[in-house]
Amino acid sequence: MAKSVNKSVIFLKYPQEFPVPGEHFEVQSHELKIDLKDNDVLLRNLFISLDPYMRGKMRNTDNSYTAGFKIGQPLDGAGVSEVIESKNPAFPVGAIVTGMVGWEEYTVVAGAKGLRAIPNARESKIPLSAYVGVLGMPGLTAYSSLKIIGQPKAGETIFISAASGAVGQLVGQIAKRLDLRVVGSAGSDDKVEYLLKELKFDAAFNYKKGNILESLRAAAPEGVDIYYENVGGETLEAALEVMKLHGRIIACGMISQYNTQNPYGVKNLVNIVGKRITMRGFIVSDFAAESGADFARDVGSWLVNGEIIYKEDIAVGIDNAPTAFVGMLQGKNFGKQVVKIADL
Amino acid sequence: MAKSVNKSVIFLKYPQEFPVPGEHFEVQSHELKIDLKDNDVLLRNLFISLDPYMRGKMRNTDNSYTAGFKIGQPLDGAGVSEVIESKNPAFPVGAIVTGMVGWEEYTVVAGAKGLRAIPNARESKIPLSAYVGVLGMPGLTAYSSLKIIGQPKAGETIFISAASGAVGQLVGQIAKRLDLRVVGSAGSDDKVEYLLKELKFDAAFNYKKGNILESLRAAAPEGVDIYYENVGGETLEAALEVMKLHGRIIACGMISQYNTQNPYGVKNLVNIVGKRITMRGFIVSDFAAESGADFARDVGSWLVNGEIIYKEDIAVGIDNAPTAFVGMLQGKNFGKQVVKIADL
Repeated sequence: MAKSVNKSVIFLKYPQEFPVPGEHFEVQSHELKIDLKDNDVLLRNLFISLDPYMRGKMRNTDNSYTAGFKIGQPLDGAGVSEVIESKNPAFPVGAIVTGMVGWEEYTVVAGAKGLRAIPNARESKIPLSAYVGVLGMPGLTAYSSLKIIGQPKAGETIFISAASGAVGQLVGQIAKRLDLRVVGSAGSDDKVEYLLKELKFDAAFNYKKGNILESLRAAAPEGVDIYYENVGGETLEAALEVMKLHGRIIACGMISQYNTQNPYGVKNLVNIVGKRITMRGFIVSDFAAESGADFARDVGSWLVNGEIIYKEDIAVGIDNAPTAFVGMLQGKNFGKQVVKIADL
Repeated sequence: MAKSVNKSVIFLKYPQEFPVPGEHFEVQSHELKIDLKDNDVLLRNLFISLDPYMRGKMRNTDNSYTAGFKIGQPLDGAGVSEVIESKNPAFPVGAIVTGMVGWEEYTVVAGAKGLRAIPNARESKIPLSAYVGVLGMPGLTAYSSLKIIGQPKAGETIFISAASGAVGQLVGQIAKRLDLRVVGSAGSDDKVEYLLKELKFDAAFNYKKGNILESLRAAAPEGVDIYYENVGGETLEAALEVMKLHGRIIACGMISQYNTQNPYGVKNLVNIVGKRITMRGFIVSDFAAESGADFARDVGSWLVNGEIIYKEDIAVGIDNAPTAFVGMLQGKNFGKQVVKIADL
């Protein structure tokens, strides 16, 4: 079963703006050395998740609080994998697991650290890719932060940027279930149609057409109680203008600011004072203990029962991972971006 | 006892930048008509408070959540006053009270609404001006927001901008009592010396000399856990650079942004995401119920026992109120700005 060659996406160089395949990262084939010690497993990766936060790890973090990717090493992230060799009785050969893996075909996970088995994975109606999406980190991100930071109340209005993305589409559907008025922005007419027709948003607009503030005012004439922030820059500025007293900003991401050396200057932060706004950044692990069990139960059952839907954008083959990642940073994906590396 | 003429500072016109005495507000004399109804009182104002938030009320608020000053009417704010006519048995003639009054010599308060008696005011060692400063709204602002938003813990570092001002000087002294490392910025060398020598700050710098970010890095090389925000703009941007993981920003004010039509664009808000920062605006009334009693007990006893000090900048005479207000917006005051209108 073991293979002698592995293909990995290797990190080459810190990008200043958008990373370029071949310059900042590239696929390399190398010999797969397997020397499992007690409790180690060898994984054959089936899906890997591409997420905007990864761009934040593509920098020199010697002086930073958060670990970055290492030059010369494979990028990593959440994946769904099959155990193909095992010295760990908890994860026998044939088990399907989710956890942190390399962007590569095969990963040895020392001590099986951080892996979680997906029970009945081969028989389930749930696609395996869901475990790095709606049932994985992006799903928990949406579920926990909306509840804990957003403090949503029926009748309030929420505005979600990047609303058809990995996190936004679930935030919107949860907010609808909680009887909020849901407004979204996205970067194409197709995405806007998806928000309105499929996800039943109350209003949505294409931020690339016309003035963002005017579009937002038209979509939320009553103002916004909660802004689910994935974008930053001009969209944040517009949100601050229309926020209501005691508004909450869930600062999940600011993807418009990750790939530029000319970040946008937000000029109306004085609204945070005047409107008594709370803006809070987080990472999902902050909330896992508090929300993990409720999330798995609620979102799992909603998904199985067809009460929510979740759109994925699946690139096929590890060779396409770098291009798919750059495309996601540019908003070319439609739905949660994943890479399918192999069939089960 | 009653007078027939009253001098008031009347609001004339919405300013776009700094208000100009004579153009946007001015002192006018007019007949004092006294026709007290049941429960009304006539006050002779002794001190009025000038506060930066008042600039935020000098705008057309027809479409706003917060009430603004009315054109043609006196400005108002917190004051300390003597009751000189009364149809309210709770506030007899001779009582010393604090509450909202006009910027003027005499104010009729219908129903004595919002007034609070200062017990033993004539015998107390506490100067009456303290009741619009360290023992009034600015004091409660400092005390409550540091505790509730700041969540200070011994050993943490706090950075306070406008640190010798009405709120900042108390924040710094409370933080020292809680064993935080306290860093402040102010706009003159005299103020910096006051922070270091009198208030025993651990570090302080003059933001007008050199680069703010470099000065802040030198003053807080270990980073900042709590930023007490009074200034906004470039100072906020510098604070975001040096904030630590899970930092808290207490958004009390942004005075650098109140008097300009060219607000500063803050370019590094992405730190809120990456460092999981919470930034929260508030007004003091949000916290009065929770903190009011503790505040009165703690700060009152510290002040009486000489455990804290509090610097005031006292302009004399209602005629000087407009100039003193503009000076405060320009940072010319040294300590809490008040206007003494009359002797007791």
